[in-house]
Amino acid sequence: MSRSSAGAWTDPAAAAAELADAAVAGDRRALARLLTAVENRTPLAEAALRRLYPQAGRAHLVGITGPPGSGKSTLVAALIARVREAGRSVAVIAVDPSSPITGGALLGDRVRMQAYAGDGDVFIRSMASRGHAGGLASTSGAAAAVLDAAGFDLILLETVGTGQSEVEVAAAADTTVVVEAPEMGDEVQAIKAGLLEVADLVVVNKGDRPGAQRTASQLRAMLVAVPHVGSSGSDDRPRPKRPEILLTTASTGEGVPELLTGLDAHRAAGREGVTASARLARAEAQVWAILADRLRESLHDEDRRALSRETLAAVADYRLDPYAAADRLLESLARLPR
Amino acid sequence: MSRSSAGAWTDPAAAAAELADAAVAGDRRALARLLTAVENRTPLAEAALRRLYPQAGRAHLVGITGPPGSGKSTLVAALIARVREAGRSVAVIAVDPSSPITGGALLGDRVRMQAYAGDGDVFIRSMASRGHAGGLASTSGAAAAVLDAAGFDLILLETVGTGQSEVEVAAAADTTVVVEAPEMGDEVQAIKAGLLEVADLVVVNKGDRPGAQRTASQLRAMLVAVPHVGSSGSDDRPRPKRPEILLTTASTGEGVPELLTGLDAHRAAGREGVTASARLARAEAQVWAILADRLRESLHDEDRRALSRETLAAVADYRLDPYAAADRLLESLARLPR
Repeated sequence: MSRSSAGAWTDPAAAAAELADAAVAGDRRALARLLTAVENRTPLAEAALRRLYPQAGRAHLVGITGPPGSGKSTLVAALIARVREAGRSVAVIAVDPSSPITGGALLGDRVRMQAYAGDGDVFIRSMASRGHAGGLASTSGAAAAVLDAAGFDLILLETVGTGQSEVEVAAAADTTVVVEAPEMGDEVQAIKAGLLEVADLVVVNKGDRPGAQRTASQLRAMLVAVPHVGSSGSDDRPRPKRPEILLTTASTGEGVPELLTGLDAHRAAGREGVTASARLARAEAQVWAILADRLRESLHDEDRRALSRETLAAVADYRLDPYAAADRLLESLARLPR
Repeated sequence: MSRSSAGAWTDPAAAAAELADAAVAGDRRALARLLTAVENRTPLAEAALRRLYPQAGRAHLVGITGPPGSGKSTLVAALIARVREAGRSVAVIAVDPSSPITGGALLGDRVRMQAYAGDGDVFIRSMASRGHAGGLASTSGAAAAVLDAAGFDLILLETVGTGQSEVEVAAAADTTVVVEAPEMGDEVQAIKAGLLEVADLVVVNKGDRPGAQRTASQLRAMLVAVPHVGSSGSDDRPRPKRPEILLTTASTGEGVPELLTGLDAHRAAGREGVTASARLARAEAQVWAILADRLRESLHDEDRRALSRETLAAVADYRLDPYAAADRLLESLARLPR
């Protein structure tokens, strides 16, 4: 992608190249701007990603998920501190289930950021989880690729593990950590069962609370009942062994060095092929989202807009079934030039 | 769709027609089988939906969502009792975030079903929330259409309101109820803010607990800050006024008659156009999921399978960017016959 010296800021490709190169060179404001573009799926983001993608692939992408109240954010903060002690750089993408409109700052990234204000090797970013279906996996995958190209050693994808999309995001990481806490309610208990299937490592956080050891034992018993090799829902990656269970107390840092050791060990095992299918799932989510965007655009272009609108209205009024509607729209795609 | 008298059970269209007609005629086992087919997206489901869809559109579809621990399930049980007292029929689709593999029965539909074992006018069904992105909205929409055609007056779509897909399901109903409980944790508190945007009615459940009135006041204050007319995330339907806040104590039934009155009032207002865009969003989710399935099939058919696999592997290895991959696959769709 070449850049003309004149009009660099009116040509999106040139502007994207400039921003991408600045982000790779260590300009954190450029990086932040790029991530905003990725989140908003602008043409600039597309051009920048085309440029950055081949420079990515070196970072270790770790998904961290768990039910509300399990202390994920505190654990992530403790992990950042440990990673920095080890002299490595770390970026966090916190998928925030609160609203982009009301501006919820659930995961408190601003507060957390302050502790590392002068440290260029820590980068924390929230992302809203609203948007069209499938968008979350694709957007977080693209954001991870940008941070990867920008040279971060470790990228943490933090999600609340109670929604389908949010769990998928964490599960598409190279290594997936499921965080639990002792003594949670029944509903949360049941959510656990689903979460355990995607876990490469299980962390019982708040390990200083009564019942922590009991929770770890219960989880061990549940894991016996969970299939770990072969298909696991939509996530087909093979697992070499049952996930390890670790106890941490994020507030004191207890168990956090062992967690980092566990992550490194999983990654080392991944070099022998374990993470390959996670990377394939991530690639598929991104390519699929782009294909879906293109298809959507085609259906809303000038030639088809009226037909699309009329067809959907007929389905909304139960005058037309959705299969007949899909056939009609596909036919229009084949018939009309794109 | 005509049915040949010979070989009715080898021809999926004929089998679907028979099953669909039986479900409409009140055969609950046929209805259950049909919903299983819908959940598994079988060809039988497609044929049955094509037949049933034009018979749907009369039911009132109500989404009920809220954070874990807000008492949604108990509230739904109390609402069922009230609806039956009023002589109306009711079906529940409970979207269960636990796993289809470990077979979590979070929402305890079997237990709840027992209370209405002899009552053909109550039907309760769980649906797993795993599956490919966008699938949940489409599957629950299709299931609602089947129950609608089967003649249920009220259809309740119950989801845990902490995931993007799950909230979208509830928000695509004609009327969306957000359930809260007094005194929940910080993380849950923040989830609330996002949920309130989709609410047509807000219920503070567990109204007998200390702090219920204070929670209601806090919610009222939050609602002032939430925009209620015009765009609200991906959900563009206009809202005529701020959502009403109701107090219920599901365990005693207190406030539940007022909730049903509120639902009826919202529906009556909906007849003047409020729910039209919710129905359009539902139609769009269903048509879109079918289009996506067709596109996915095309990319995995014999002519393209090798190319698709190789292209995704290149993205997974960061040798190819996802936009270039999407362009390559779209080109293959245009070039090769479908």
